Amino acid sequence: MDTIEIVTSKPREFLEVTGRITARLAANGWRDGVLHLFVPHTTAGLFVNEHADPDVARDIESLAGELVSDRFPYRHAEGNSPGHVKSVLFGISLALIVEDGRLVLGTWQGVFFAEFDGPRRRKLFLKFMKS
Amino acid sequence: MDTIEIVTSKPREFLEVTGRITARLAANGWRDGVLHLFVPHTTAGLFVNEHADPDVARDIESLAGELVSDRFPYRHAEGNSPGHVKSVLFGISLALIVEDGRLVLGTWQGVFFAEFDGPRRRKLFLKFMKS
Amino acid sequence: MDTIEIVTSKPREFLEVTGRITARLAANGWRDGVLHLFVPHTTAGLFVNEHADPDVARDIESLAGELVSDRFPYRHAEGNSPGHVKSVLFGISLALIVEDGRLVLGTWQGVFFAEFDGPRRRKLFLKFMKS
Repeated sequence: MDTIEIVTSKPREFLEVTGRITARLAANGWRDGVLHLFVPHTTAGLFVNEHADPDVARDIESLAGELVSDRFPYRHAEGNSPGHVKSVLFGISLALIVEDGRLVLGTWQGVFFAEFDGPRRRKLFLKFMKS
Repeated sequence: MDTIEIVTSKPREFLEVTGRITARLAANGWRDGVLHLFVPHTTAGLFVNEHADPDVARDIESLAGELVSDRFPYRHAEGNSPGHVKSVLFGISLALIVEDGRLVLGTWQGVFFAEFDGPRRRKLFLKFMKS
Repeated sequence: MDTIEIVTSKPREFLEVTGRITARLAANGWRDGVLHLFVPHTTAGLFVNEHADPDVARDIESLAGELVSDRFPYRHAEGNSPGHVKSVLFGISLALIVEDGRLVLGTWQGVFFAEFDGPRRRKLFLKFMKS
């Protein structure tokens, strides 16, 4: 298992981590198989979507904020319930195909770490399964 | 493959199953690899989130009920369409990393089975892939 | 890795692909393990839900359209931001258990490809990991 350390700088922030993941493939000699990503946090998540136009990630964040309102009558006292709900809706695990040492992604796809209760120091776990 | 039998007691209920999954790791001698969880139902789901304060799970359920209203003009005649939609939004499969016979989870994370159309007898499938 | 080519015919469309996936298991001699599915697009997704009554898929689509409105003030200029958000909420990767050359699914479950910005030619990647 390998770990990528992530430092977020805002309450809510989507950070593209595709390049950092690719670098770990090379560093670990992971060439053909499936790479499992896992976020060990309850107010963060992971997703794959467009990395070309940053407005797409902004729209995803805006709409997530509209769906999971900060003003809903939550019971959890810490004030970060919207972050917990978003973590469930976005998900915290992902499996990516690896071929010849490269992530198999579509042209417009990037992998994003989603911070929903920052700023914080976060971790992303990587587990490679060889085929 | 192994199966955990789950009995739910309410129409909507989130049951933490982390302990039962861990017990199966030991019973099956599963030590290092990836554990795949799969829910073979269309009105149930799976998620990973905070297990310390039960108010977090209650908030997740309340907000899911707000998003996927019981009063929307659904066409499916059985009356459980909100459960089908929630199953899609929460997801029915999950991959967890296993090291030295233990689930690799964050401090606050637990694995939850989500009932959206109970009470029922449910199943959770476990498939271990050795690394 | 194998690829299923999908042709969608509407702006939004859910196509059941269970039969096509099963055919690939046989064609490739994939008998026991985990099948990873991956959608290499940013305005499409994947889900598992009821395939018996087509009204269920229609309800899932209607409610997704209610949650992710076409009229929200999106910034991305291409007009397909709702499709990007739905892709994130539904997800683009899935792992299915395979035993004796068959997908392990519940009685009512089918695998659906979700088009959120069609009509288009799409791809679905399949990667089998033998147990």
